[in-house]
Amino acid sequence: MAYLRNAWYVAAWGHEVTRTLRPRTLLNEPVVLYRQLDGTPAAIADRCPHRFAPLHLGRLIGDAVECGYHGLKFDCSGACVENPHGDQRIPAAARVRAYPLVEQDGLVWIWMGDAARADASQVPAYRYLADPSFKTIGNVMLQQANYQLVVDNLMDLTHVNFLHAPYQKTDELLVAPHDVTQTGRTLDSRRAIPSTRAPQSFTPFLADPEAPVAYWLDMHWQAPGACRLEVGVTPVGQPRSAGILRRGTHIVTPETDTTTHYFYASSRNYLLDDPKADQETTNWQQVGFHEQDKPMLEAVQQRMGTTDLDALRPVLLSSDLAAIRVRRILKELMADEARGNVDRLPNGSVLTMDA
Amino acid sequence: MAYLRNAWYVAAWGHEVTRTLRPRTLLNEPVVLYRQLDGTPAAIADRCPHRFAPLHLGRLIGDAVECGYHGLKFDCSGACVENPHGDQRIPAAARVRAYPLVEQDGLVWIWMGDAARADASQVPAYRYLADPSFKTIGNVMLQQANYQLVVDNLMDLTHVNFLHAPYQKTDELLVAPHDVTQTGRTLDSRRAIPSTRAPQSFTPFLADPEAPVAYWLDMHWQAPGACRLEVGVTPVGQPRSAGILRRGTHIVTPETDTTTHYFYASSRNYLLDDPKADQETTNWQQVGFHEQDKPMLEAVQQRMGTTDLDALRPVLLSSDLAAIRVRRILKELMADEARGNVDRLPNGSVLTMDA
Amino acid sequence: MAYLRNAWYVAAWGHEVTRTLRPRTLLNEPVVLYRQLDGTPAAIADRCPHRFAPLHLGRLIGDAVECGYHGLKFDCSGACVENPHGDQRIPAAARVRAYPLVEQDGLVWIWMGDAARADASQVPAYRYLADPSFKTIGNVMLQQANYQLVVDNLMDLTHVNFLHAPYQKTDELLVAPHDVTQTGRTLDSRRAIPSTRAPQSFTPFLADPEAPVAYWLDMHWQAPGACRLEVGVTPVGQPRSAGILRRGTHIVTPETDTTTHYFYASSRNYLLDDPKADQETTNWQQVGFHEQDKPMLEAVQQRMGTTDLDALRPVLLSSDLAAIRVRRILKELMADEARGNVDRLPNGSVLTMDA
Repeated sequence: MAYLRNAWYVAAWGHEVTRTLRPRTLLNEPVVLYRQLDGTPAAIADRCPHRFAPLHLGRLIGDAVECGYHGLKFDCSGACVENPHGDQRIPAAARVRAYPLVEQDGLVWIWMGDAARADASQVPAYRYLADPSFKTIGNVMLQQANYQLVVDNLMDLTHVNFLHAPYQKTDELLVAPHDVTQTGRTLDSRRAIPSTRAPQSFTPFLADPEAPVAYWLDMHWQAPGACRLEVGVTPVGQPRSAGILRRGTHIVTPETDTTTHYFYASSRNYLLDDPKADQETTNWQQVGFHEQDKPMLEAVQQRMGTTDLDALRPVLLSSDLAAIRVRRILKELMADEARGNVDRLPNGSVLTMDA
Repeated sequence: MAYLRNAWYVAAWGHEVTRTLRPRTLLNEPVVLYRQLDGTPAAIADRCPHRFAPLHLGRLIGDAVECGYHGLKFDCSGACVENPHGDQRIPAAARVRAYPLVEQDGLVWIWMGDAARADASQVPAYRYLADPSFKTIGNVMLQQANYQLVVDNLMDLTHVNFLHAPYQKTDELLVAPHDVTQTGRTLDSRRAIPSTRAPQSFTPFLADPEAPVAYWLDMHWQAPGACRLEVGVTPVGQPRSAGILRRGTHIVTPETDTTTHYFYASSRNYLLDDPKADQETTNWQQVGFHEQDKPMLEAVQQRMGTTDLDALRPVLLSSDLAAIRVRRILKELMADEARGNVDRLPNGSVLTMDA
Repeated sequence: MAYLRNAWYVAAWGHEVTRTLRPRTLLNEPVVLYRQLDGTPAAIADRCPHRFAPLHLGRLIGDAVECGYHGLKFDCSGACVENPHGDQRIPAAARVRAYPLVEQDGLVWIWMGDAARADASQVPAYRYLADPSFKTIGNVMLQQANYQLVVDNLMDLTHVNFLHAPYQKTDELLVAPHDVTQTGRTLDSRRAIPSTRAPQSFTPFLADPEAPVAYWLDMHWQAPGACRLEVGVTPVGQPRSAGILRRGTHIVTPETDTTTHYFYASSRNYLLDDPKADQETTNWQQVGFHEQDKPMLEAVQQRMGTTDLDALRPVLLSSDLAAIRVRRILKELMADEARGNVDRLPNGSVLTMDA
């Protein structure tokens, strides 16, 4: 299937990119990731142009990768820098694709499209991941589902009342006002409940778990798969800054048409050094993402039997608003890209759409 | 592949349909089965029309199924009875297919075709399954083979002399007279051996295992996959009623093109309360069906590499008579159905065929 | 995919062909191998023409195979010799394909093409396998890769410096003179290093492991997949006969388009009765073939995603010379065969090619 190519995707958490060659398939392309001696990450195609051996089966020597089959060496630009055979001349065609990377906020972003268009200033910001006033716990997992299904899941948080009940459930969630605003290739989906009983996921951290709170869930999406969620509770009548909140990192990168790398983290602004709060987060990520979302998303992919949601003519509900808009923006961006018009929707511009 | 749709298939044994949602794929369609509060079984499509979640991952609340992803609720008619989102209006398209069911003789039959044509009086009768003068032991298993291969296996019982030897073998079986009679969408295949040594499967239950017996095997098939086998032995010269017999239930329902639900049971009219006789049956079903038939049928499916037997131009033997007729009747019925002429072969009518 | 059919392939080591029916898929065709009472091997299609049961699930009775499903019996010519059903006449179409076999040097060779063209005198010779002045240790394994990738691996031995380093590495190997000579449907690829440090795989067997040796690697290929390798070391200035050598048997037979039977053996002319030398060979075969070649070849097959190397436009190096010639000869032979001209390249003739 087609993907938006001129866009930043997360290839890995920074700590995953080391001096050990790491293979990772992104947008159906095999990539090998490694860290150079000066600390900068590198990504080149994981397929030698000689006999198509995966380069990650070779060795990292200095900043170059030696193919493990017949010994061609490639540097981080994808150029062949050594041919050990015969007269040792380097064939002109001996090169592999290199991918622009940006390491920022603990994430390694990769540009899968036209390298000349890669603009580091457009990398989505996740500042809190590197902010010491937050405690962050995260990981990466593979979902056996198309990446848009994972984005759909994130963009319609009403699913927490069913799939993640009772832990994340809030009675008023399904009927709370829902504000959806698109700005360029980003979308904000905001829900605010003025007064409710705090969801179980917050009660261990509240002085009075029974006291009514204002509760908010603000999801921010940037094309194609970068989501940021802020959920918080504050005593009714108090400003948000008087409460506690968690910022959720939820970033999806297609591996193949029906598999998705899901990078997730939870960053809290309370009890920063509390192992029990850490454990609570770890437990939730295991249960919520691995044992609840994953089987559901994978079952949905199986039941669909395709990656084309529209072709199945889904019945849409009011809660689908943000997810459907995200799909429509992505479709527009891909159509633009196919027409060679890649910059019609920079961050900050507004696409007029009828909902 | 195409299936005969306007027909009764077994969806489950009655005891399999409970207050726990049970998914089962039938004729390539995902179905969820459950029992309503009044005890009647229900079957609806196992795919929510909203986001295509399997409904069996949700909850049974009263007589309705709540989708486990975003909470739409469906009743046994397939109608959506609750939308918890926003203004809670129920979209007109929010419905799933419901399937007519008949529970009879301990079996739950499902109609996969035009619901208006579902006629409960046409459900095949398996009265002995509920008859206290028989002791029944049965189960269900999945064969990784097209359903017609499983029917072929049943309709040519000469295979017992090879695949199930020595337990079920009878020397005279392969040359015994063989009567094949078609009546409408049913076929009877009868073999009678006037005098033989009883097969090992009967000898433990005979006063004199060495005494010659008359032995009969009468197989009754009803389209598309309902078989009933009567096998019995009686002392030579005595009527069948003087002997002992077993009624075999062998019903196949396609799961997919190359997988088949096989519902089987053995009902004996002797030693009704004898645990050793029960054990003998259980052992035979394990060995004969799971360890002998199953690997053979699955290997045949693999070797064929298709579901189209005719395309491979099989060499036919005299023992294939009943199996080939069954295939021809099914083909006629499917052709009729494709022409919209579904009732040309009701039970009881006779299709003239040249053998 | 197409295969060269009028050619001898190895079906099995002689010791693998016994009184137990052995199934083996060759060139996508299921074959059953067995040994007749007089000791000669037999090979017939492993699919009964009646109901397509694999014949290897049946029984070997005398020299005939009885189908385990309904009892047709076939002899080594593929003729049906018994039909136990009804009037027991044998249908004219009841026969399976039989394959010409030659057992020679401990190998069972099979002819997958036009039986009338099978010429036993053209079976490749592996005399040393039966020569008591050599000690042979071998086996067979399955590679999940197209057979031509396995041949490529054998025809470009420079890979030992990377994939099998340090055990088989020789510094001068990659720049040593390389003589490639084609004769009919055979190709010789010879490398000789006049003076070097002996590779680790030889040093345990040399009086002075540090003394410089002459080292040679001579690979002989015969279409489609029979390779013979001689590797040896001798003290510098001494004739080859003064040194020690190993003859390697490396024969590949396609199982399917992407899986290959790889028959391998190592025959040494030194320390014939030394268990430690045996163990050294066994260890090398485990490490080199199973743990190094196999994962690499399978990863290459995965990365290629096709069996058509040319379509991927590989960058070729000087070390590819022999492998590329082998591919070109095979292509010519298959084109000839497709045109019905099967004997244009008998062993001994020379095909003029520009390198």
